[in-house]
Amino acid sequence: MVSFTCERSEDGVAERLFDLTVDGERVPAVIWSPEGAKGSRPLVLMGHGGSQHKKIGTLAARARQYAQRLGYATLAIDAPGHGDRISREQAEALSREVGARVRGEAGSNPTFTAEMLKAMAERTRRAVPEWKAALDAVQALDFVGSGGPVGYWGVSMGTAIGVPFVASEPRIKCAVFGLAGLRTGQTAFEEAAKAISIPLEYVFQWEDAVAPRESGIALFNMFASKEKTMHINPGAHVEIPNFEGASWERFFVRHLGLASDKARMAA
Amino acid sequence: MVSFTCERSEDGVAERLFDLTVDGERVPAVIWSPEGAKGSRPLVLMGHGGSQHKKIGTLAARARQYAQRLGYATLAIDAPGHGDRISREQAEALSREVGARVRGEAGSNPTFTAEMLKAMAERTRRAVPEWKAALDAVQALDFVGSGGPVGYWGVSMGTAIGVPFVASEPRIKCAVFGLAGLRTGQTAFEEAAKAISIPLEYVFQWEDAVAPRESGIALFNMFASKEKTMHINPGAHVEIPNFEGASWERFFVRHLGLASDKARMAA
Repeated sequence: MVSFTCERSEDGVAERLFDLTVDGERVPAVIWSPEGAKGSRPLVLMGHGGSQHKKIGTLAARARQYAQRLGYATLAIDAPGHGDRISREQAEALSREVGARVRGEAGSNPTFTAEMLKAMAERTRRAVPEWKAALDAVQALDFVGSGGPVGYWGVSMGTAIGVPFVASEPRIKCAVFGLAGLRTGQTAFEEAAKAISIPLEYVFQWEDAVAPRESGIALFNMFASKEKTMHINPGAHVEIPNFEGASWERFFVRHLGLASDKARMAA
Repeated sequence: MVSFTCERSEDGVAERLFDLTVDGERVPAVIWSPEGAKGSRPLVLMGHGGSQHKKIGTLAARARQYAQRLGYATLAIDAPGHGDRISREQAEALSREVGARVRGEAGSNPTFTAEMLKAMAERTRRAVPEWKAALDAVQALDFVGSGGPVGYWGVSMGTAIGVPFVASEPRIKCAVFGLAGLRTGQTAFEEAAKAISIPLEYVFQWEDAVAPRESGIALFNMFASKEKTMHINPGAHVEIPNFEGASWERFFVRHLGLASDKARMAA
């Protein structure tokens, strides 16, 4: 049973923090929902990017908009080694390191070494059961429930973790991935991608310093989904155009519908 | 001065046919607009595909929806050697030939021969001044005017003709292209693509029998536009998912806005 460590409401949106314990480790989580929500509703799980955390600006802003406009609940958790699971100093060092890499700065390492791939695989191995535990926990809440459809959103590290998670989680009905690629030797990641057949929207930046074009197309090609759309835009890793955010929202509405209270209001 | 050969209204949308004479040849045209429309409004030019005609089902359906929902005017013309510019027997033979090619049937020619590329270039050479004349003509109409922004939509042959047209027409503010590629030796087409810098949405089918993946990406790469998005979906030439049609509408609304009468109603 979840007990909230912090609850607040603003502009009609309730934000509740809680902690899970998975494999002996604390996993901080947040759930957004319409203020006063009752009953099952569509749920979106949002996986943040490398060096970010569960309440990063753009992610939290979309969660609030989904609550306001669609009546959705949105769940986010801190990935292993991120957010409230590390100290402020560690977070700042991580942010500098990842920032240099996505900007393709001299001295940063644009290609993933075997060591980095191993660390990513280890992080994913821990993150997948954490996501499942978090999904179990919020589906037991009366204002989320288990009766509504569930979608996943996560780009960059949110895709690195999200692909194996979604592949192993039948409750997820559609997903937005992106800013990631498939590299030689990522056998488990490739197998996970091949096991995914739900509708996908896959956003990609054409001048991404950390995900070369060929790797991005290779990952897109692996998904077994009949409905999958790759959106390619010019620019760097962190330069996804704003209109893609609007496209994600429409993708979720297309596949998850509106919360029944919102649907009644719109009718 | 345009004189209409046929006018009818249905479900709040007026459809008017007229003929232009360009370089001694008759060019049949159609303009859709909201019934009773007055004054300048956004205008979309729609270029049909190979073997099709100016009033092909999906094109006409979108034109009507744009009039109803957005207050737009939409113009379409028969391309050289298409629609009412050829006999019914010629149209049927053309439809069989193009149909076999886009379905990748045995015996059809999936690659473009030098002769076919030459015929396409000749068709485009004639089509560009026809589009300009048609745009001149409808901007002189009181219910279209020259005060509203202009967009272009055309995939497949609509892109083959549209790229050189849009490159040479400063009145076009944004365009949807797709189902086309850049092939070795298409120097003039490549130069036209390089001269385009307006916002673009570019739709592509990943198993297109007539536009291989590499050629599609090569064309996307040539556009000088800062805002350009390539949407890749699985399937054949004629299998663009319906949700891309919804995406085109939002693209036009983003760049052309709504007609002022529609904007007043929405406010």
